[in-house]
Amino acid sequence: MKAVRLHEYHRQPVIEQVPEPTAKGPFDVVVKIGGAGVCRTDLHIIEGQWAEKSGVGLPYTIGHENAGWVQEVGSAVSNVEVGDTVILHPTPTCGLCHACRAGNDMHCENSVFPGIDSDGGMAEYLLTSARACIKLDPATRPEDVAALADAGITAYHAVRKAVPLLYPGTVCVVNGAGGLGHIGIQSLKALTATKVVVVDRNAEALKLAEELGADETVLADGKQVESVLELTGGNGAEVVLDFVAEQGAQQDAFAMTRRNGSQFVIGYGSNIDIPTIDIISTERNVVGNLVGTYNDLVELMVLAQTGQVTLHTKKYPLEAALDALADLDAGRVRGRAILTP
Amino acid sequence: MKAVRLHEYHRQPVIEQVPEPTAKGPFDVVVKIGGAGVCRTDLHIIEGQWAEKSGVGLPYTIGHENAGWVQEVGSAVSNVEVGDTVILHPTPTCGLCHACRAGNDMHCENSVFPGIDSDGGMAEYLLTSARACIKLDPATRPEDVAALADAGITAYHAVRKAVPLLYPGTVCVVNGAGGLGHIGIQSLKALTATKVVVVDRNAEALKLAEELGADETVLADGKQVESVLELTGGNGAEVVLDFVAEQGAQQDAFAMTRRNGSQFVIGYGSNIDIPTIDIISTERNVVGNLVGTYNDLVELMVLAQTGQVTLHTKKYPLEAALDALADLDAGRVRGRAILTP
Amino acid sequence: MKAVRLHEYHRQPVIEQVPEPTAKGPFDVVVKIGGAGVCRTDLHIIEGQWAEKSGVGLPYTIGHENAGWVQEVGSAVSNVEVGDTVILHPTPTCGLCHACRAGNDMHCENSVFPGIDSDGGMAEYLLTSARACIKLDPATRPEDVAALADAGITAYHAVRKAVPLLYPGTVCVVNGAGGLGHIGIQSLKALTATKVVVVDRNAEALKLAEELGADETVLADGKQVESVLELTGGNGAEVVLDFVAEQGAQQDAFAMTRRNGSQFVIGYGSNIDIPTIDIISTERNVVGNLVGTYNDLVELMVLAQTGQVTLHTKKYPLEAALDALADLDAGRVRGRAILTP
Amino acid sequence: MKAVRLHEYHRQPVIEQVPEPTAKGPFDVVVKIGGAGVCRTDLHIIEGQWAEKSGVGLPYTIGHENAGWVQEVGSAVSNVEVGDTVILHPTPTCGLCHACRAGNDMHCENSVFPGIDSDGGMAEYLLTSARACIKLDPATRPEDVAALADAGITAYHAVRKAVPLLYPGTVCVVNGAGGLGHIGIQSLKALTATKVVVVDRNAEALKLAEELGADETVLADGKQVESVLELTGGNGAEVVLDFVAEQGAQQDAFAMTRRNGSQFVIGYGSNIDIPTIDIISTERNVVGNLVGTYNDLVELMVLAQTGQVTLHTKKYPLEAALDALADLDAGRVRGRAILTP
Repeated sequence: MKAVRLHEYHRQPVIEQVPEPTAKGPFDVVVKIGGAGVCRTDLHIIEGQWAEKSGVGLPYTIGHENAGWVQEVGSAVSNVEVGDTVILHPTPTCGLCHACRAGNDMHCENSVFPGIDSDGGMAEYLLTSARACIKLDPATRPEDVAALADAGITAYHAVRKAVPLLYPGTVCVVNGAGGLGHIGIQSLKALTATKVVVVDRNAEALKLAEELGADETVLADGKQVESVLELTGGNGAEVVLDFVAEQGAQQDAFAMTRRNGSQFVIGYGSNIDIPTIDIISTERNVVGNLVGTYNDLVELMVLAQTGQVTLHTKKYPLEAALDALADLDAGRVRGRAILTP
Repeated sequence: MKAVRLHEYHRQPVIEQVPEPTAKGPFDVVVKIGGAGVCRTDLHIIEGQWAEKSGVGLPYTIGHENAGWVQEVGSAVSNVEVGDTVILHPTPTCGLCHACRAGNDMHCENSVFPGIDSDGGMAEYLLTSARACIKLDPATRPEDVAALADAGITAYHAVRKAVPLLYPGTVCVVNGAGGLGHIGIQSLKALTATKVVVVDRNAEALKLAEELGADETVLADGKQVESVLELTGGNGAEVVLDFVAEQGAQQDAFAMTRRNGSQFVIGYGSNIDIPTIDIISTERNVVGNLVGTYNDLVELMVLAQTGQVTLHTKKYPLEAALDALADLDAGRVRGRAILTP
Repeated sequence: MKAVRLHEYHRQPVIEQVPEPTAKGPFDVVVKIGGAGVCRTDLHIIEGQWAEKSGVGLPYTIGHENAGWVQEVGSAVSNVEVGDTVILHPTPTCGLCHACRAGNDMHCENSVFPGIDSDGGMAEYLLTSARACIKLDPATRPEDVAALADAGITAYHAVRKAVPLLYPGTVCVVNGAGGLGHIGIQSLKALTATKVVVVDRNAEALKLAEELGADETVLADGKQVESVLELTGGNGAEVVLDFVAEQGAQQDAFAMTRRNGSQFVIGYGSNIDIPTIDIISTERNVVGNLVGTYNDLVELMVLAQTGQVTLHTKKYPLEAALDALADLDAGRVRGRAILTP
Repeated sequence: MKAVRLHEYHRQPVIEQVPEPTAKGPFDVVVKIGGAGVCRTDLHIIEGQWAEKSGVGLPYTIGHENAGWVQEVGSAVSNVEVGDTVILHPTPTCGLCHACRAGNDMHCENSVFPGIDSDGGMAEYLLTSARACIKLDPATRPEDVAALADAGITAYHAVRKAVPLLYPGTVCVVNGAGGLGHIGIQSLKALTATKVVVVDRNAEALKLAEELGADETVLADGKQVESVLELTGGNGAEVVLDFVAEQGAQQDAFAMTRRNGSQFVIGYGSNIDIPTIDIISTERNVVGNLVGTYNDLVELMVLAQTGQVTLHTKKYPLEAALDALADLDAGRVRGRAILTP
């Protein structure tokens, strides 16, 4: 089959023929890929930023945001059948460790992360496990939902954790209105009655944010902290969902929180650097966020299938994967680039 | 009456005669001080560190950790009577703002902080409000419990917030076994079945920690992070209560947390400086803590009056306040210095 | 001033002249009534059902659902001023007991309940306290929001408690689509993405429920339990908000819950009678609900002022109070009857 | 192998030879039984009370509370090895349904319950699954801990759910000081600082309760409700753990709760029958409880292995199973009867 393979860091991946995966273990599932998201993390992988953390051996197939149809199942698989339409939780988990037993899939002690530390989904077929599969309405087109498998679940997970803090009368800042931010805005509107204030340096992104339900938008023109404080009576926001968290945005995000407020870190890149006296004298929090649970993705699919969360996507055939990566790198993709068979 | 008054920053306070306070407002309460704690924050106040934050006018009376007996009550006070033994929540609150209505006293929009931004309790009498008074068993000696009014409530509040994270099988690190740490250890033993690991650079403090129930102790000899990781199978702790949070201890504290773990910042002094990728790739949190709620102090008094939390104190007459401050500054106080009438 | 006074149980109240109340205590507030809701509980009071529970002395003024303008304030009132538009939490509270300090206003140990156990708001003026007042946008017409002060807060409080159970993919049954049910439906739509199934025996009420956002409606024709089970794949609902809770509806409500589900009892009248084996073998819960907190009402007013919760009302002049009571008793009121000055 | 087999309802089981189970499926685990608890539910099974609910075909082997050593594992088992000492969660679960993915093992849509609806552990070997196995310190004697597998986890699960309600200053009533009650008392002491009041009609059971840490005991002599109210200043308890829930005890338990309090139903037998006005006018709750999660049992084993929860047991060889059942029926067992190899 065809696959997008990385042979060397700092070089473009190669589209080449590799053997199709097969279901050998009792819980193995082989999925025919119907949609594979192209993510900024793919660019970072190519740049070698994940080389040490993932420890993956080269060459390997990238692509960690996948949906498709079940092609083959192992002997003990009971939750999906050949032909089922599925979206895949990004990390097949063991189901046996304490984290799995508590529903915290992203903290499984034995998980793999296809596309990061093993062969991923920018290919015709992907090997995953029964525990990663979420069965969808057969009418669903995998290419329309694939981006929810990683970008979507990550934004939704953070929103889900913030819900108890976001009762009516509160303000939630969405810092960064890109792909994740858009899903964050829609998830906030679906799950809360908080006032959603969106901050971005791109005026067009703010326009789309408004269409998706943002109550207020703030152009990140250098005075974004002051603007947020003004919009909140000088207090700041109960929650700031920081989808950027680099190049100073992470410092702004903390400055936008109010007494007893929380900065949810979702993006990454730079350092958080805060005097402890500022943390304790106002009792503020910095909250880490990582992908999400299997049930988070199940819930997000409910929102997607009832039209409460929609995605802007740009489709490319698998053969054009390098174009998609180049467009993403050059800022030419609005929404999410998706590879299709 | 006699009072310990600060006339100038960077100079010792003066013990001098000032008029006694009186209950003018309907909710005013005047308390005859039976015990006033001497706190490191008093040293910081003298050093001028709080000058800008508090905005207090000099001269004024310091002392923010107080217990005693009700001397006079305003016309509308219904919860205490003259002669009642009371411990005082450190911040008299308005009872009307959103935070007060949610029980979050420390976030009251209209509170004062006697001893910080108005006249405090290192005096014969203190003016406070009905909402700050907790009535105690008349057999209680104020000098025995005063230190719970600030040091105690702060440690207890952090423990109380951490309880849901500290189920059997977890590890909680107490970083710093001073006055607050000791109350933290005892509160953890009373409220949870977590394994308590205490870290301090003072071997004697660790000995006392063991007597108070610490399950393990670690000398902070430069290898304390490695030692904690070893004690936790290489994982780190679910919660680190950081009672130090300065001079590098705050960085160690984060390094001691495990995946999905939380550093509770209670001490202060230096900056937290963490790469956002470390926060998101393991979904860890930094949690601010500030004093505590009125009900926190009520609960802590239950633990104190049933002997589950005890305090080491060193008593000084009010006239010897400057000796107490000097002893504290020189590290000659074990437990808490308390001024008595 | 004019007031609707009950002189004898089982007899109609009398509209008569009584002295205007004045603000004597430091926290007293006198409110000029702009809207007073007429509630089924008023009928029950007249029938004597509350005689023993309330212990109120006759004659007295009924009316426990009030909004208006501040007419006079006590010496220590700081949160409202004469002329402010206000809605009133139904139970002025002490602010000093454990429940008040935790934000649980409805469990205050020292509260009064004007209109139930002391003079209420079916009059020109009402005596209440600073702690009951919520200041509104001066453009608000009290007659438009008064019904939120009791019916609204009660429905909202139950929904608010149920939010953590109602993630996407769940089902919430609203049992009874009367005044409270309508606010319940709108609150559910504002605060959750659960599927809302409304059950009522009145087809017109179901029609209005659909307009307010109900996802499914079920006519209570004797087969309502089966219908709900069918709509939920045979499982039942995660939550049933039981706004009826009498005449068998309370038994149906429990039967509509799924494994690990919860029946929220809001209405009242009959007995809950369940085999304990049914409670334990499926781990189901019966949850009591009572009015709501002050902050619940603050939050609900945010929803009302942003148009997310609206009310159908029928206005009557104060002089026509007996007509309003008669219309309510005869089922001639759609929405809520409101007395106006 | 030998097994205790029920051939007919209302007749004693028979000890007879049956084939040993083998690990056929990839996740199967065969355990050599080291301890099998004898439970009142076994008597109820023999009496036919579970015939319809379980739908089990006769003859079959009873015994649902088991610990032992791993004898054989299926091809995909990774969490235990042959020879490991294990305690077994009572319900092997699928690991794939929504409940499993949220950690709610007892609500698995596809679980079996060995000893209830399939062959159980009163035998030399038991067939279970990898997901039911908790690996223990090899020094643990299965016969010492087996009773935690069902009685223990059930009591612990209820306590664990009640922890957030049981802050210092609260009262928790343990209604019934039998096997489950004893574990409940010890779990409460380990996890909370609440005041534990134990109610039982047996004076000896109360004596043992005191040794296990009960703060107060109340003889159920007909005035137990009054006694509990007296002990709580007329208010009642925040939580009543009702380990009896039959023959009127369930009504007493509700009557012992205070405003905003909760009755946790754990025992079963009779009906709960409460006027809905009593539920809503004081906002009280009835909370169902069922076994517990896998992680609940993991946590309980931590308490057991650190000596915080201990069990009184009476050992019988497997061949004497009928004596054990007879002794239990006749009230001759203090603590828990355990069958040993």
